[in-house]
Amino acid sequence: MQGHQVFHAPHRLLMGPGPSDAAPSVLKAMSMPLLGHLDPAFIQMMEEIKEMLRAVFRTRNPMTFPVSGTGSAGMEFCMVNLVEPGDEVVICINGVFGMRMAEVAERCGARVIKVEAPWGEIIPAEKVALALKDTKPKLVGLVHAETSTGALTPVEEISRLAHEAGALMLLDTVTSLAGCEVSLDNWKIDAVYSGTQKCLSCPPGLAPVSLSQRALEAAQSRKQKVQSWYLDVNLLNGYWGSERVYHHTAPISMNYALHEALRLVLEEGLEARWRRHQANHQRLVDGLKDLGLSIASQAGHQLWQLNAVSVPDGVEEATVRQTLLNEYDIEVGAGLGPLKGKIWRVGLMGESSRPEYVDKLLLALKNILGR
Amino acid sequence: MQGHQVFHAPHRLLMGPGPSDAAPSVLKAMSMPLLGHLDPAFIQMMEEIKEMLRAVFRTRNPMTFPVSGTGSAGMEFCMVNLVEPGDEVVICINGVFGMRMAEVAERCGARVIKVEAPWGEIIPAEKVALALKDTKPKLVGLVHAETSTGALTPVEEISRLAHEAGALMLLDTVTSLAGCEVSLDNWKIDAVYSGTQKCLSCPPGLAPVSLSQRALEAAQSRKQKVQSWYLDVNLLNGYWGSERVYHHTAPISMNYALHEALRLVLEEGLEARWRRHQANHQRLVDGLKDLGLSIASQAGHQLWQLNAVSVPDGVEEATVRQTLLNEYDIEVGAGLGPLKGKIWRVGLMGESSRPEYVDKLLLALKNILGR
Repeated sequence: MQGHQVFHAPHRLLMGPGPSDAAPSVLKAMSMPLLGHLDPAFIQMMEEIKEMLRAVFRTRNPMTFPVSGTGSAGMEFCMVNLVEPGDEVVICINGVFGMRMAEVAERCGARVIKVEAPWGEIIPAEKVALALKDTKPKLVGLVHAETSTGALTPVEEISRLAHEAGALMLLDTVTSLAGCEVSLDNWKIDAVYSGTQKCLSCPPGLAPVSLSQRALEAAQSRKQKVQSWYLDVNLLNGYWGSERVYHHTAPISMNYALHEALRLVLEEGLEARWRRHQANHQRLVDGLKDLGLSIASQAGHQLWQLNAVSVPDGVEEATVRQTLLNEYDIEVGAGLGPLKGKIWRVGLMGESSRPEYVDKLLLALKNILGR
Repeated sequence: MQGHQVFHAPHRLLMGPGPSDAAPSVLKAMSMPLLGHLDPAFIQMMEEIKEMLRAVFRTRNPMTFPVSGTGSAGMEFCMVNLVEPGDEVVICINGVFGMRMAEVAERCGARVIKVEAPWGEIIPAEKVALALKDTKPKLVGLVHAETSTGALTPVEEISRLAHEAGALMLLDTVTSLAGCEVSLDNWKIDAVYSGTQKCLSCPPGLAPVSLSQRALEAAQSRKQKVQSWYLDVNLLNGYWGSERVYHHTAPISMNYALHEALRLVLEEGLEARWRRHQANHQRLVDGLKDLGLSIASQAGHQLWQLNAVSVPDGVEEATVRQTLLNEYDIEVGAGLGPLKGKIWRVGLMGESSRPEYVDKLLLALKNILGR
């Protein structure tokens, strides 16, 4: 085979659905020399990651750590540990990631009861209440921030209903974490997963998760073994817990990056970070309005970090997106499923949530659309 | 919560069972700015990774790519795609990783027939032949280089027997790949997985895998869906194949690292790399002999890249290992299972396979053991 050249990544403004830009110190952290996964220095760093993740998730759950895979591995981690074949689960679906949750639950042998809302809208708590009238499910699953549509569903009432029905509450916070409020303990969330490449502004590759005591007990008192060895919390606890038993080789460099990314999040302060995301979202919305453009998702429940921008009539969605990438080095995302061709997904997450990014995008759109 | 300090990794010589040291250019590659996982520049790099992996695995299998998880996720990838509940499989066990393979197969619902050999020894082909006399299994699973014991089992005869019995041949090459011969097509291997952090000298976090056409057909003609959504080859093929359908967000920076690591492997040349591993192994063996130490694994089948060094009578295994780490910044591994306390595992993998590393370790051992 012909030899390949060294790869040089072009510089883009990452304003799609993720990954977002990572801070220079986060990228630099990954170039530190490797350590063994049982090295005392690495283990101390793991402890700090767990502590910082608890702060970011606003929880005291001891079982809080990053799964060695991307956000979808985090989803699968929660599902394989909590669901056993034959279990009934309620899954709320208002976009791609709710659909994925249902699919993953089915592959665990669950009987899935779906609570659906149109894409772009939130899940109304009343619909969940209705579904829970006739069933006592093992868990209720909800996507907090639907990355495919830009809608943010309020969690507290749905969590209350889930607990009233005796269910565990599972929350997808892949896009919400560190971009808007996520308060596990206040909201009584039993199981949560996230990704590193959204508002944490760390490269993709890890999935922060957290399980409440109740969720952990459910995983520990299963009748059947967890179908995934790689994601079995009972085994992972041996490594991330106090025993430090070898399970798999943790992704060392990715954990360096996560440590630094979490440090930056807490240095900025969670609430200051949410306000920054809100302000840049507002700047985008105002600027779009001047161009005659608007947000497609439900008014009053629009995500700050992921903006579904309606493609105007007569405009070729893909052409604009490719022009942004090729001529302006700006990445925005396409719509998925029923929203394909109808929206651009503009991410303002973590390091990518900056007024100058918003302004560059608005100017580029003005030029391309001729407005 | 108190803020945490920036983490600074101490510099170690990584001479344990992995991770091995990564080359400076591999570490540096991870600090490149991020790209979107559907960016044309990233997709072109993915193609190059696939090409280079094929060269390193010595295969033409189109389905050759890195799974977004560590080596154990690669094992699980092969098993969940190829095995269905009720399938009979033959698993060869002569150490930790054969045991793990059997455990993962069981969690896929397989009926596992075990072919066992003592830890430290190879799997004799005759034992596999005997097991295959009375059964027509779906697959035969073998660990090529047993990282827990330092033994290298010859593959060709076992692969021939597996095919004669109509089975798929599954091979674990986590520790062997790029450190000694691995020739998928010549050996007629149907499914293989590896890890990045051993002889490829890339940080842990990805699991290179390859499936033959026959294995792919088995995965595509399953009666039941693959139990893991994250690892379902039918879905992953949509992203790593020509369609480029979004599945999960690929670990961008880890793929940068793998691209550079593979480039370095091919620049050195596979056969030159094997010879280097052999020479440094021999240097270690000779030096150990001068200290009155020896290799514990079966003569004639000792791995070059992972050396199981017998702990002499009266010597505290853990104390020596900790002294090496604390006073010499050298990491070596402990024995696992029945070999706990009885061996040190000395890795000479990839970038860590260097004469000067061997000499440093020998000198340190001489000092610590007072020989």
